[in-house]
Amino acid sequence: MSPDLSRLSLNQATTKRWTLREAVDGCARAGIPAIGVWRDRLAEVGASAGARLLRDAGLRCSGLCRGGWFPAATAAERAARIDDNRRAIDEAAALDADVLVLVCGPAPDRDIRAARAMVEAGIAAVLPYAAECGVRLGIEPLHPMFAADRSVIAGFGEAIALAERLDSPYVGVVVDAYHVWWDVDVYQLIQRCGSRLFAYHVSDWITPLPDVLNGRGMMGDGVIELRSLREAVDATGYDGLIEVEIFNQAIWDMPGDELLALICERYLAHVAPLE
Amino acid sequence: MSPDLSRLSLNQATTKRWTLREAVDGCARAGIPAIGVWRDRLAEVGASAGARLLRDAGLRCSGLCRGGWFPAATAAERAARIDDNRRAIDEAAALDADVLVLVCGPAPDRDIRAARAMVEAGIAAVLPYAAECGVRLGIEPLHPMFAADRSVIAGFGEAIALAERLDSPYVGVVVDAYHVWWDVDVYQLIQRCGSRLFAYHVSDWITPLPDVLNGRGMMGDGVIELRSLREAVDATGYDGLIEVEIFNQAIWDMPGDELLALICERYLAHVAPLE
Repeated sequence: MSPDLSRLSLNQATTKRWTLREAVDGCARAGIPAIGVWRDRLAEVGASAGARLLRDAGLRCSGLCRGGWFPAATAAERAARIDDNRRAIDEAAALDADVLVLVCGPAPDRDIRAARAMVEAGIAAVLPYAAECGVRLGIEPLHPMFAADRSVIAGFGEAIALAERLDSPYVGVVVDAYHVWWDVDVYQLIQRCGSRLFAYHVSDWITPLPDVLNGRGMMGDGVIELRSLREAVDATGYDGLIEVEIFNQAIWDMPGDELLALICERYLAHVAPLE
Repeated sequence: MSPDLSRLSLNQATTKRWTLREAVDGCARAGIPAIGVWRDRLAEVGASAGARLLRDAGLRCSGLCRGGWFPAATAAERAARIDDNRRAIDEAAALDADVLVLVCGPAPDRDIRAARAMVEAGIAAVLPYAAECGVRLGIEPLHPMFAADRSVIAGFGEAIALAERLDSPYVGVVVDAYHVWWDVDVYQLIQRCGSRLFAYHVSDWITPLPDVLNGRGMMGDGVIELRSLREAVDATGYDGLIEVEIFNQAIWDMPGDELLALICERYLAHVAPLE
């Protein structure tokens, strides 16, 4: 029986040096059936051409990174962020992405509570357009070490509660094991997501952490119980893609095809169901 | 009216290059009435002599750092950790410390749930001795970025729940703003501590974070709402010491007396009640 890679997706930030075309070709060579796309790399070719690249290669799009970044100091800036999220929704629709990943953004000042309210207002503002375009918005709770500079939505339970309040089939949660593994309630929280679990990302937590931003590890090199977390994700009824997203200079320095082979190997060894 | 430093305490790790005697003398010169002591520096002079140093200078001891570190791979290692915690309790008693700070330790393997059970068993094992010695044990939830290498107790709510389960006047929580500021429920959790809030520590979260372990900022240099958090702490009925604990190379490189003057200034400007 050949190894089952049918749920594996490559987040293209994992192959940071590759263009979208290079990443699509790499996935095709490696037998990886899906890709998570970043907007900066998509912009280099344009959304329509990028979507055609994926279609021609027969690749699914597990998600588009990223919308969000809602809080800002002025109403004008916040409106500009919302416009940008509408453009991201257009791009996600063009790619037929499973989800638009929302990294919600930091506070413009010390008032994290006000910033959280701006996030909620921002998502509510773009939600009708997302629904119209058939694009699902996935709130990604980031690890609390990013609460000051990337996302005021720093808790798994907080992200779920936000999705529950917005209460739409077009708003859910992106669960990344790296961000939530440490939470004493992680298994209950995965269960609580239910049908709001829109996407699942994996990497590993290595110690000592080599870098705050770019210190993620390859699956199997760290402490996260990736198989049991994936089992919990599946138990919600989620049978979608599992995206590998690793920010790490040593990973980026690997030859791309070698890296993709390693990702397939480690995905099968540490994440996928045992055969 | 002279500035009120009556609740200020210096955690001696903030003046890392100073011996205990030097830190005690520095506090006396700066008008800081209390000190948080580290065991390695205490061991250099011995617990009795260290306690005498504090008494002679008229300094209170806001806490002893640190007990904890309970999880280990074998029963023999776990028993050795428990013995070490009993020695820490003796030292805290000698210093008449307000609390023995428990940094609970990482898991010896990938099983964080098992490690959490070892923490609970470890505290339960030393609790009768702590009570006998009149020493209060303070569980310190660390920031989740330390969940893999310093403390499996990585959530504020988790620490409170653990203290509640152990249900003793000798078990409470050490709240450090740096570790918990990002939690969406931080104000409710402070309130939930009630009389179990045994100690309060401050520093600040600066961005970009200069270092995972030694990246803490001086109060006022970061994003933490230190005054409103301190007000919430006081609203529980806590009227104890407020300890400044900063791990940061740039801070350690400052001349000690200058650093203590800056701590007093920033404590008054960003933490203490406005006069």
